[in-house]
Amino acid sequence: MILTVTLNTALDITYRTPRLVPHATHRVSEVTERPGGKGLNVARVLAALGHETVVTGFAGGRTGDVLRELLPVAPDPRGRAFSPPADAPVDAPAAFSPPVDALVPIAGATRRTIAVVDETTGDTTQLNEPGPVVSPAEWAAFLARYEELLGGADAVALCGSLPPGIHVGAYADLVRAARGAGVPVLLDTSGEPLRRGIAARPDLVKPNADELARLTGSREPLRATRDARRRGAHAVVASLGPDGVLAATPDGVWRAGPPAPAKGNPTGAGDSAVAGLLSALVEHLPWPARLARAVALSTATVLSPVAGEFDPVAYDELLARVRVTEQPTQ
Amino acid sequence: MILTVTLNTALDITYRTPRLVPHATHRVSEVTERPGGKGLNVARVLAALGHETVVTGFAGGRTGDVLRELLPVAPDPRGRAFSPPADAPVDAPAAFSPPVDALVPIAGATRRTIAVVDETTGDTTQLNEPGPVVSPAEWAAFLARYEELLGGADAVALCGSLPPGIHVGAYADLVRAARGAGVPVLLDTSGEPLRRGIAARPDLVKPNADELARLTGSREPLRATRDARRRGAHAVVASLGPDGVLAATPDGVWRAGPPAPAKGNPTGAGDSAVAGLLSALVEHLPWPARLARAVALSTATVLSPVAGEFDPVAYDELLARVRVTEQPTQ
Repeated sequence: MILTVTLNTALDITYRTPRLVPHATHRVSEVTERPGGKGLNVARVLAALGHETVVTGFAGGRTGDVLRELLPVAPDPRGRAFSPPADAPVDAPAAFSPPVDALVPIAGATRRTIAVVDETTGDTTQLNEPGPVVSPAEWAAFLARYEELLGGADAVALCGSLPPGIHVGAYADLVRAARGAGVPVLLDTSGEPLRRGIAARPDLVKPNADELARLTGSREPLRATRDARRRGAHAVVASLGPDGVLAATPDGVWRAGPPAPAKGNPTGAGDSAVAGLLSALVEHLPWPARLARAVALSTATVLSPVAGEFDPVAYDELLARVRVTEQPTQ
Repeated sequence: MILTVTLNTALDITYRTPRLVPHATHRVSEVTERPGGKGLNVARVLAALGHETVVTGFAGGRTGDVLRELLPVAPDPRGRAFSPPADAPVDAPAAFSPPVDALVPIAGATRRTIAVVDETTGDTTQLNEPGPVVSPAEWAAFLARYEELLGGADAVALCGSLPPGIHVGAYADLVRAARGAGVPVLLDTSGEPLRRGIAARPDLVKPNADELARLTGSREPLRATRDARRRGAHAVVASLGPDGVLAATPDGVWRAGPPAPAKGNPTGAGDSAVAGLLSALVEHLPWPARLARAVALSTATVLSPVAGEFDPVAYDELLARVRVTEQPTQ
């Protein structure tokens, strides 16, 4: 089982409106809701790949209730039948099994995020609530649940921002607990929580170019990726948007990119890359295959008409066509 | 007791953000929620004036649950003590008594409205969900509750838009039921529901200048107001924004305006005017006093720092200074 942690889960609400005009009144033409937060997105993609997943983190209030109700029907709220892509593990269940809910209840209400899609331009304006304040007792309850879940986990992903009330070194603590339990751990966050988390020596971090620059002070990807590795991560996979990824690992340095830049909605592409890396890790694939999967999944997510989901047909096609090239190590 | 009907209630959510930039991602700095929809706003102001109020309409889903939980704590979510203004009826209770919840449960979820306040400009961008679909059985349940509530009502206000699934002549039916029960009825809506509703001969309609122009085809206030009266309303009070109101009644025609144009947030000013007209009607005040109260309340709402609430001190001061002038009848 793969465990994903989302401390600041969200009820993701999407509004469609003919045109967004600041300071005007808009009648929303369509409303959709789905469970959100990076770790939940990662789990949805992992489940779609045929992996058993468990999600933990916090959920509370009426928005938390809705999020938990919607969790089993993910990844496809429109009710289409789903079949795992061709390279799903042989022992994967024939039918999609949704992420298992191991979220910890909390007194505060799970935040909402509102994505307003302008139907004229196709652009999205995002409004993110800050999230509930987590009490020390709730954090302690989470830690106990997390330790328990690590016992059955093949890998764990720690994803996204910290809600108010959680100390900035929280991810470092969670990394250390995973390492203590012998569970490979991937960290995908930003800012100070990333800086502290890396120092606790996670197996893998997946910063994007901006996060990497903030961490290392360098905008030169190869230099910054190597610098991030020296800070404590065993491997660093930097996502470079449409250019693919750059990976610095104990086995070597690689670049991997799609056959052609993809046009579409990049929402969730990074979460799909995390799911690709993590699933390939637990399947003991070598680095080039892990990176190919990450790039194919994130590109297939950009190409999908539904934000945050990947197109399984495009994924199968892309997987063979991703170019992975080894870089000289110095 | 004064009854207010809100068929399309809403959970009004306000976000504050440093600056709203289309197509960017925003971290919301403050989130507030309160029960919304015109009839609920009217009831809140009526209750603040010391009147017993009952609210009906529909509420459903998790958003409906939150709305009903917040109803008793209105009008002031910040928990300040509230005292009725100086001209509250002598027999008004010393303490504020909140609107009584007689909302009819519905399977669909009560809509949300999102007001995004740009803290740099002070301007608000509004996103309104369409509302739940009301089934024929739910509409029948509402009609039964409405007829029952009319039995104890001194007046009724029918407020706001119709949710999906309710026929466009619904307000006309509700106006006829009120008249049949001998209860004075005020209608505050727009478009075709207003056109149909007026033909059922309500005691009072309160269109704004735009609604009046759409109804009558005329932008000349006096002509349009008289035309609206000829269409069936016993009295028409047109709200003309910062200029106050123009009233065509069986007793004469009046203009009423504030001593000076008010600067502030006009959200809810129209609902406060409705509360002023309705409270003065059940207190059997003559038309000039009714109009003075409506203008003083709506101006005190514009001046209030909290959107949709009125400033009681400003209200008391304004009440004596509103200018009401009779217009020649032809």
